[in-house]
Amino acid sequence: MNVDQLTKLLEDVKNNECDVNTALELLKTLPYEDLSYAKVDHHRELRNGYPEVIYSPGKTLDQIKGIVENMMKRSKGNILASRADRDVFEAIKSVTSDAIYYEAARSVVVKREEYKTTDDYILVVTAGTADIPVAEETAVTATVMGNQVKRLYDVGVAGIHRLLDNVAIINHAKTVIVVAGMEGALASVVGGLCDKPIIAVPTSIGYGANFGGISALLGMLTSCASGIAVVNIDNGFGAACMASKINKL
Amino acid sequence: MNVDQLTKLLEDVKNNECDVNTALELLKTLPYEDLSYAKVDHHRELRNGYPEVIYSPGKTLDQIKGIVENMMKRSKGNILASRADRDVFEAIKSVTSDAIYYEAARSVVVKREEYKTTDDYILVVTAGTADIPVAEETAVTATVMGNQVKRLYDVGVAGIHRLLDNVAIINHAKTVIVVAGMEGALASVVGGLCDKPIIAVPTSIGYGANFGGISALLGMLTSCASGIAVVNIDNGFGAACMASKINKL
Amino acid sequence: MNVDQLTKLLEDVKNNECDVNTALELLKTLPYEDLSYAKVDHHRELRNGYPEVIYSPGKTLDQIKGIVENMMKRSKGNILASRADRDVFEAIKSVTSDAIYYEAARSVVVKREEYKTTDDYILVVTAGTADIPVAEETAVTATVMGNQVKRLYDVGVAGIHRLLDNVAIINHAKTVIVVAGMEGALASVVGGLCDKPIIAVPTSIGYGANFGGISALLGMLTSCASGIAVVNIDNGFGAACMASKINKL
Amino acid sequence: MNVDQLTKLLEDVKNNECDVNTALELLKTLPYEDLSYAKVDHHRELRNGYPEVIYSPGKTLDQIKGIVENMMKRSKGNILASRADRDVFEAIKSVTSDAIYYEAARSVVVKREEYKTTDDYILVVTAGTADIPVAEETAVTATVMGNQVKRLYDVGVAGIHRLLDNVAIINHAKTVIVVAGMEGALASVVGGLCDKPIIAVPTSIGYGANFGGISALLGMLTSCASGIAVVNIDNGFGAACMASKINKL
Amino acid sequence: MNVDQLTKLLEDVKNNECDVNTALELLKTLPYEDLSYAKVDHHRELRNGYPEVIYSPGKTLDQIKGIVENMMKRSKGNILASRADRDVFEAIKSVTSDAIYYEAARSVVVKREEYKTTDDYILVVTAGTADIPVAEETAVTATVMGNQVKRLYDVGVAGIHRLLDNVAIINHAKTVIVVAGMEGALASVVGGLCDKPIIAVPTSIGYGANFGGISALLGMLTSCASGIAVVNIDNGFGAACMASKINKL
Amino acid sequence: MNVDQLTKLLEDVKNNECDVNTALELLKTLPYEDLSYAKVDHHRELRNGYPEVIYSPGKTLDQIKGIVENMMKRSKGNILASRADRDVFEAIKSVTSDAIYYEAARSVVVKREEYKTTDDYILVVTAGTADIPVAEETAVTATVMGNQVKRLYDVGVAGIHRLLDNVAIINHAKTVIVVAGMEGALASVVGGLCDKPIIAVPTSIGYGANFGGISALLGMLTSCASGIAVVNIDNGFGAACMASKINKL
Amino acid sequence: MNVDQLTKLLEDVKNNECDVNTALELLKTLPYEDLSYAKVDHHRELRNGYPEVIYSPGKTLDQIKGIVENMMKRSKGNILASRADRDVFEAIKSVTSDAIYYEAARSVVVKREEYKTTDDYILVVTAGTADIPVAEETAVTATVMGNQVKRLYDVGVAGIHRLLDNVAIINHAKTVIVVAGMEGALASVVGGLCDKPIIAVPTSIGYGANFGGISALLGMLTSCASGIAVVNIDNGFGAACMASKINKL
Amino acid sequence: MNVDQLTKLLEDVKNNECDVNTALELLKTLPYEDLSYAKVDHHRELRNGYPEVIYSPGKTLDQIKGIVENMMKRSKGNILASRADRDVFEAIKSVTSDAIYYEAARSVVVKREEYKTTDDYILVVTAGTADIPVAEETAVTATVMGNQVKRLYDVGVAGIHRLLDNVAIINHAKTVIVVAGMEGALASVVGGLCDKPIIAVPTSIGYGANFGGISALLGMLTSCASGIAVVNIDNGFGAACMASKINKL
Repeated sequence: MNVDQLTKLLEDVKNNECDVNTALELLKTLPYEDLSYAKVDHHRELRNGYPEVIYSPGKTLDQIKGIVENMMKRSKGNILASRADRDVFEAIKSVTSDAIYYEAARSVVVKREEYKTTDDYILVVTAGTADIPVAEETAVTATVMGNQVKRLYDVGVAGIHRLLDNVAIINHAKTVIVVAGMEGALASVVGGLCDKPIIAVPTSIGYGANFGGISALLGMLTSCASGIAVVNIDNGFGAACMASKINKL
Repeated sequence: MNVDQLTKLLEDVKNNECDVNTALELLKTLPYEDLSYAKVDHHRELRNGYPEVIYSPGKTLDQIKGIVENMMKRSKGNILASRADRDVFEAIKSVTSDAIYYEAARSVVVKREEYKTTDDYILVVTAGTADIPVAEETAVTATVMGNQVKRLYDVGVAGIHRLLDNVAIINHAKTVIVVAGMEGALASVVGGLCDKPIIAVPTSIGYGANFGGISALLGMLTSCASGIAVVNIDNGFGAACMASKINKL
Repeated sequence: MNVDQLTKLLEDVKNNECDVNTALELLKTLPYEDLSYAKVDHHRELRNGYPEVIYSPGKTLDQIKGIVENMMKRSKGNILASRADRDVFEAIKSVTSDAIYYEAARSVVVKREEYKTTDDYILVVTAGTADIPVAEETAVTATVMGNQVKRLYDVGVAGIHRLLDNVAIINHAKTVIVVAGMEGALASVVGGLCDKPIIAVPTSIGYGANFGGISALLGMLTSCASGIAVVNIDNGFGAACMASKINKL
Repeated sequence: MNVDQLTKLLEDVKNNECDVNTALELLKTLPYEDLSYAKVDHHRELRNGYPEVIYSPGKTLDQIKGIVENMMKRSKGNILASRADRDVFEAIKSVTSDAIYYEAARSVVVKREEYKTTDDYILVVTAGTADIPVAEETAVTATVMGNQVKRLYDVGVAGIHRLLDNVAIINHAKTVIVVAGMEGALASVVGGLCDKPIIAVPTSIGYGANFGGISALLGMLTSCASGIAVVNIDNGFGAACMASKINKL
Repeated sequence: MNVDQLTKLLEDVKNNECDVNTALELLKTLPYEDLSYAKVDHHRELRNGYPEVIYSPGKTLDQIKGIVENMMKRSKGNILASRADRDVFEAIKSVTSDAIYYEAARSVVVKREEYKTTDDYILVVTAGTADIPVAEETAVTATVMGNQVKRLYDVGVAGIHRLLDNVAIINHAKTVIVVAGMEGALASVVGGLCDKPIIAVPTSIGYGANFGGISALLGMLTSCASGIAVVNIDNGFGAACMASKINKL
Repeated sequence: MNVDQLTKLLEDVKNNECDVNTALELLKTLPYEDLSYAKVDHHRELRNGYPEVIYSPGKTLDQIKGIVENMMKRSKGNILASRADRDVFEAIKSVTSDAIYYEAARSVVVKREEYKTTDDYILVVTAGTADIPVAEETAVTATVMGNQVKRLYDVGVAGIHRLLDNVAIINHAKTVIVVAGMEGALASVVGGLCDKPIIAVPTSIGYGANFGGISALLGMLTSCASGIAVVNIDNGFGAACMASKINKL
Repeated sequence: MNVDQLTKLLEDVKNNECDVNTALELLKTLPYEDLSYAKVDHHRELRNGYPEVIYSPGKTLDQIKGIVENMMKRSKGNILASRADRDVFEAIKSVTSDAIYYEAARSVVVKREEYKTTDDYILVVTAGTADIPVAEETAVTATVMGNQVKRLYDVGVAGIHRLLDNVAIINHAKTVIVVAGMEGALASVVGGLCDKPIIAVPTSIGYGANFGGISALLGMLTSCASGIAVVNIDNGFGAACMASKINKL
Repeated sequence: MNVDQLTKLLEDVKNNECDVNTALELLKTLPYEDLSYAKVDHHRELRNGYPEVIYSPGKTLDQIKGIVENMMKRSKGNILASRADRDVFEAIKSVTSDAIYYEAARSVVVKREEYKTTDDYILVVTAGTADIPVAEETAVTATVMGNQVKRLYDVGVAGIHRLLDNVAIINHAKTVIVVAGMEGALASVVGGLCDKPIIAVPTSIGYGANFGGISALLGMLTSCASGIAVVNIDNGFGAACMASKINKL
């Protein structure tokens, strides 16, 4: 709300074209509900383009159940709990039978309406088989957010022909998410092959000098290919958020 | 080129529907020119959506001049030399009078045609005044790549009202580039305020525990706001590439 | 004890205005009791403004019981065992029925007198729900030390309106403790909003480039807002000590 | 401004007890002036308790002069430029003859009114002679902010008697700033000796495993003494801000 | 396939000297089989000189079984699963009775033909007894790849005579693999004693400032002896690949 | 053995003043016994001043038993197994009833002769109670090596009087071992108080910015007090070796 | 020299089949000459396969001249001074007119005989133009050591076709040295394409999260392609040593 | 001063066997002189066994001159200024003609009496020629402190025979200081060869993964040889202090 809008609103109040309560609501602008341990943000979808998501780690099962119940009362939409172990799923399941568990993605969805989809698709690419859990977190999240998603797994650069054979599916995507551990070189190679925005997700797959994903992270940040942006290590969720914003432009 | 396409092409050759030279050109696909010290890549624009750019550090002035001359012979487009000190500008100027120096952005453009522009704009935001050089590298690069660019500088979170007063210009952008040093918190706050893709550029502005930009880099990677992707420290150029790809979708 | 005081004391001894034993006691000044594995410091409260606290990790249950028993014999005050798992609580409970377990705070208090309180309050703010355990360690510690404490939880910067709605409670505090993981940006934003001393507690909440709290730690140390000082990662106890000293000025 | 206050204001507007312009001003709340490269924040003193300060690095001399001129037009108070080399001083001197250069502190003050002072004092302690520049930045900043400041230099723990001889001046301070490089042990020892809030400033003094101040920083963060909070490496300015807030409580 | 070869092939197709299917096969060049979660690369042996290997971590037991079955159908060769815990062995054993478990090496071999061997040998040297598991991974891998392997264990530099007594076996090797944790000094000493290519494998053996193998890794990378190249921490497999390539020259 | 000695020996052989076998023994000089997985070094005591010690981690129980049995056959002295969990003790106990377990020190001694002692003593000092396990490793090791050892525990700098009260026992030691975690400041303070060689042992006691002992390690390495040398984090054994060498000078 | 050989030698001396002086020479085995500040090692070529090399940094010009003069007196071979600035060249030139300066490689050769060459060649590949100085150090060193060397520069993975066009020259090499900065992905891609031993040289080319070459170093160490070994950052010399050893097998 | 001594002193005062002033002096115990910017510690020699030393970096030339003049007035002994550039020497020279500059050691000595010496010697060993400056700092410091010093330079492990030829001079030393950069392996090898206390000094000699001395530092801390203690990177002075304390036992 900028100054002009504010002036207009105040004049409307003065002129009784807007009553105090309406103005108050507008000026509060960004409401949320206070559960004391969490402030549930019902308007985030409007502001950010995707629903409130529950990041599960560090929350007790009771807190998660409380948040889900509150969300269900206030809206009709789907709810996503990320980084959810099976006991989180069981807890949510005890609150609503609409809960679905995507095990590979460690994600729970309270599915209350069909997922929407888009004409354009987001492509999720992995370097190896071990990167699939992070890729699935990305794919499920993007699907819940209403995007068409395609997958291209195990096309790491050590066998570059596996990648070159799939250039078409890469170039027809609207945005590409590259999920890779170890040295993360796949992001650079894909970045050199296609002209779409690329979101690189370093994974913690590897050992030794991988240092829990640092090698892939640094490799992606310093990529010789331009037009690549990076999210946190193993952050499949965040990559999906970014890709969803782009895919819906 | 996938297998079906390849089969088709080979059959066309066999049936004389495509002559050998044409097929050869198609199969070579991605030509470049070899200067021995550099392989200039004339088709990169087609593949990646932006022209060959000269990253100046580590190249001798003679090498830079040679690359510029080669590029000028082969195409009619604009050429961008990034991270260019004044002596790089002088070197390029000696080759062509079309060279322009954007000092704050440390960028040289060989401007041979007017910059195109777009209806949508990319917004470049900085936390402080000291972040402006990186922001200008971003802004100039995006402009040369044919985008409309707007600037919003010195709106760091220590005076949050400066940011809140400008929510409109943020929300009307197609994509937002947040340039910030120190702790890089501006990316998180902007990320919470708007629903557009956000590209975060950590800068090396700061001292001590900033460690040359690490504090901002880690802060942006671990942002509590979703839908943010990060490029390398001080990488204004890379942010512009990513934003340009998104802006032209 | 400075030189003047020392001269005076010695002259008193010489003139028999103070006997040797009294002087000896005074010169020893800072007594403690030696349990061989621990030197219990009964005068620390006088020196530092808060009672001896037992930092539980690395001590055996028998050592902890021994220290509690010794403390109980020597003083009438409350005793705090921090970073105490439930088995530490059980051990202390076996020594005294006055033991109370604050589970969320992982703190045991041997409560032998009512907590004092103050007119001014310390405000404990968290960015997210997952930061609550550290916040509770802070809140319980400050309470045991005789301070009024208020809590404001889950007001992270990704939903800045949740914070802006609570500016009043922030500005009326005498000192503010900001507890945040991930990128720790909340400290910067609070620092820009209020003029009270702010103690920032980075938490290890997060993953990947959070590196066990480093991202929040560096972010808080390099904050663009001034008037912020930082304690160790997850150090809710230390923040309470600092805040208590300030609150009682 | 909380919801009650907002309701009241809107009703006042409606009832003509407050006109639109006044309400507008109140609702804008936190004004600043836009120089395009900097947004000068004239109300920061009200919000944060100290005047706008110019952090010099990364700003051009012309930008600094522009900011100083803008500040001088809008207020009558003193202005502080920190981390100012002599050429920054010369630039400011060319704008106003009120500029004073505190060389050891690398600080410029545009002194337009006498410094205020307080009854209580802030004590600045250093471990060694080489820590004095950071200590002087702290001392000058705190003085400009209207505090009484005392200095105790070169009392590092390798000669602990130098410190023990000065316990009185330490314990009579309202807050103590400990400035130390190398291993930063002085903060722990002072923390064990006195019951005042202690702000620890690690310095980059040292070499090798000091790693530009990391050894002191980590040492202070992990201090065995409680009631210590830490600012960034070499951040004398930040320590003064924190101490000033505490000293004026 | 270079341009000349490509021209020739196309002309052959045109002239019916090569039919389309043959050309297609040649142009596809690098086939693999798609299991959706893995793209099994049957020609890797031709390209890289050793068979497809299954890196076990991060793959489910079902995925591993599927990959083994696919490999067994397509070729007659031996198959190696590295970093294989006993349950991986059991899973593979359930698919084929040819599975052998090398426990010390944490390696499973599906042994379908006798290991080949070479006249020249690879020597695997360890500094200590605790480095043996990594050394065994190297030795078993190199053996499966068809090399003669000799072992020299526990000859660390703290008892340099143990090493000097074995100079002969070192100098007669075709290539030497040095496996060492802690400070990794053995690589430097062996590097000074012999003129063969040396592959250094840092191990994570150690504690404290070993930081999971960093001390050995850095020590080997900065060795004062030349002609040493290094693989990842604990990467016995990678060292064997490199040594096998050299040994077969 | 230098060149002159070598010439003399060879001439003695030639002149039959020394027979071949004797010369051979002399030239072999530093014998050891090869168990294939370990090369037991029976002469190390002569070279290094202390007996072969078994570092337990990374060795199987069978390997440890084999090494102990071999050692017992060859010499009559005591044997020390360091970093030994209880199962290591049980394994050694099954080989010899002379095994004693020092639990706090995690050390097993096969005690076959009384410990020798010295007139001078090594003093082991700890900052806190949690540092005792490392201190006990040091104390037991030094005792087994034949030194008189005294202990002074829990005298960290946060209560400096506890240390100052014990200056006498510190100054009468021949060498002092300071064991401290967190910031490790105790080493600096002891270093400033006494003129004996000080060996500093950083411990991994702490959390957060302690980073597993790095804060103490860096603090001790950069100590403002001179005449301090440092061993690896938690390396009580190594400190005892160094102290024993010094104590026996 | 093992025990059997030693016994045989001693018996030969005893039986006058070998005189004392000859035995002495054999037993001394590894002679060098002592210049007090340097011990020149004339037999290193025999032991290690390449001549003594002068690593220039940290040596005074007088020391370098002294070492060159000593070497020239003792042998007839070529001498290589690495990491040599122009003043090092001038210093050596003042000693001998045979000195040649390879500027791009920062290497001085005292060329006293023609370089030998081999039938097989070492291929030096770079990702970018800025990596050429390190590549030239490698190429010149390998040439001086008597190897045929070929160069393939600026074929980084951002334009993968530049690399694919040159697969033939890669596969015909006996060993390949990959020189790359930034994320170092080129090593992985080359590693996947060819079956020759690959030596990866990370360079410090890059900025920000490159951290002076760490990103390339970690990327190469954690490469998903096997059969790659790595040398220190910018260590063109060391890569040449390793490659030369392999090329001459 | 312990409790018994204190009781005795107080009784002496009471009984007039000691007057107040004498007692006062004794109780002040550890005098120093206050120059405001430095507290010169005249009794440090008594406490620590060596004279006050001026660590030059971070002190102005005027401060250094002031400290030297103060020291000269108070004692007759030699004075050492470490890490002294030539301008520090010139400054001290302007105060006293007794100043001598040891250039290689970057040390100034105000030599007012002949250096004492000892029967036992400290041996300073370096791995390479480039380590000599640090070694000379050690050697000069130890000499000024009254020790006999011997040097053994350039005996790094890449040519192990150079070291083995000098075992005698190593074993006859009372303590050995090993100065080495790069991987610092020399400390481990010397540690395995001799039974004397070894002080290891990592140097910053090297590049790339040396990281300013970290590789040598970590290598020395994690040495497989026991009885080694380590000082800070390049800390030749500290090593000399430690060695001097040991040598004089």
